[in-house]
Amino acid sequence: MGTKDLVLTSFWRSSCSWRVRIALAFKAVPHTLETIHLQRAGGEQFKDDYRAKNHMAQVPLLTINAGLLEDPVYLSQSMAILEFIEEEYPDPPLLPKKSLERAKVRQIAEIINSGIQPLQNSSTLKKIKSFDQDEQAWARFWIQDGLDNLERQLQGLRSTEFLVTDQPSIAECCLIPQLYGARRFGCNVSAWSRLLEVEERCLSFDAFQSSRPENQPDAEL
Amino acid sequence: MGTKDLVLTSFWRSSCSWRVRIALAFKAVPHTLETIHLQRAGGEQFKDDYRAKNHMAQVPLLTINAGLLEDPVYLSQSMAILEFIEEEYPDPPLLPKKSLERAKVRQIAEIINSGIQPLQNSSTLKKIKSFDQDEQAWARFWIQDGLDNLERQLQGLRSTEFLVTDQPSIAECCLIPQLYGARRFGCNVSAWSRLLEVEERCLSFDAFQSSRPENQPDAEL
Repeated sequence: MGTKDLVLTSFWRSSCSWRVRIALAFKAVPHTLETIHLQRAGGEQFKDDYRAKNHMAQVPLLTINAGLLEDPVYLSQSMAILEFIEEEYPDPPLLPKKSLERAKVRQIAEIINSGIQPLQNSSTLKKIKSFDQDEQAWARFWIQDGLDNLERQLQGLRSTEFLVTDQPSIAECCLIPQLYGARRFGCNVSAWSRLLEVEERCLSFDAFQSSRPENQPDAEL
Repeated sequence: MGTKDLVLTSFWRSSCSWRVRIALAFKAVPHTLETIHLQRAGGEQFKDDYRAKNHMAQVPLLTINAGLLEDPVYLSQSMAILEFIEEEYPDPPLLPKKSLERAKVRQIAEIINSGIQPLQNSSTLKKIKSFDQDEQAWARFWIQDGLDNLERQLQGLRSTEFLVTDQPSIAECCLIPQLYGARRFGCNVSAWSRLLEVEERCLSFDAFQSSRPENQPDAEL
């Protein structure tokens, strides 16, 4: 591919958008960034024209324009987008070559993607708040528990520079935004020595820096 | 591979275990099934010996014994397990060949895997119940909303036998268990004509039938 025209729809503080921003930057994939605002005017993602592209009304969304004669393809779900980018732009890789290592990368990514993030995203927190519960405490609970367990799991396997191998991967694309979320919700990050060590190594890459929320055109600081 | 010795740890009513049971049966992958009980004695998944293999204390877990001289690998997270099985046992495939179709399969799988299931799993429901809220209504809300949106998204694309192509895929491995959960929590499934049509086709395969909760050795009916 490479000739296809890609548009990423992103929101600066969305951790799932950030995952994809890292991958596109890491692989230097040419693309256009479009932003929508998840809170303004009740949430721009709920407007009809956006929902026609993504019925789940979420970011990120990758619009793939294959050519003038074909309809664009709208691809949602950050994990599906990350795998698509990996298949179409394999170099530099974000998945190892060895099958068991690839499996471990996906395992860690999914611990975050399905085990933590869905419980702290904005629609879940809105629902928790409607119960007159402290939605910040709820988010903090799930992130703390999930990353505590991930840290314990990784403690036995400290011999690599990054989570699974000596290179960053899709797992780090998920971890770095989740650590940002952990701090935002007031988690105690101090016990996560392995996660913080990997985070520090990641943040030495331009791709992990340029993709940060505060470096986005729609950032509100 | 194929010579590796695989053990699947499963619980009959776990939808994520069911996903993996479908894939193993569909590809006729030789394996041993072990069961643990997620409710009995406070949950067998919280016992130290299980947590040593899977700190997240969840099912499914795939234990991969590569040989007498190597330590077993413990692989959790159903999506990572499904991708691993697909890579190691590619025939018959559960992912299409074309990159955009693969992406669409993963998108649908993730709408269920990260968009719905985490909000209705047992640990989330336990926490909701601790708020004196109706945890069944909470689960029903998220499943109804998620599958309503998925149905709408698929309505434009009705030309294939299954969700993305004319063959079942990882997306159907996720859909069929989620529809079972939808009925269990009392969702209104009647509007999901496309999902039900695909479900009926899936259930004509032995792999989708033999893997059903009620056909498991640990089923409690």
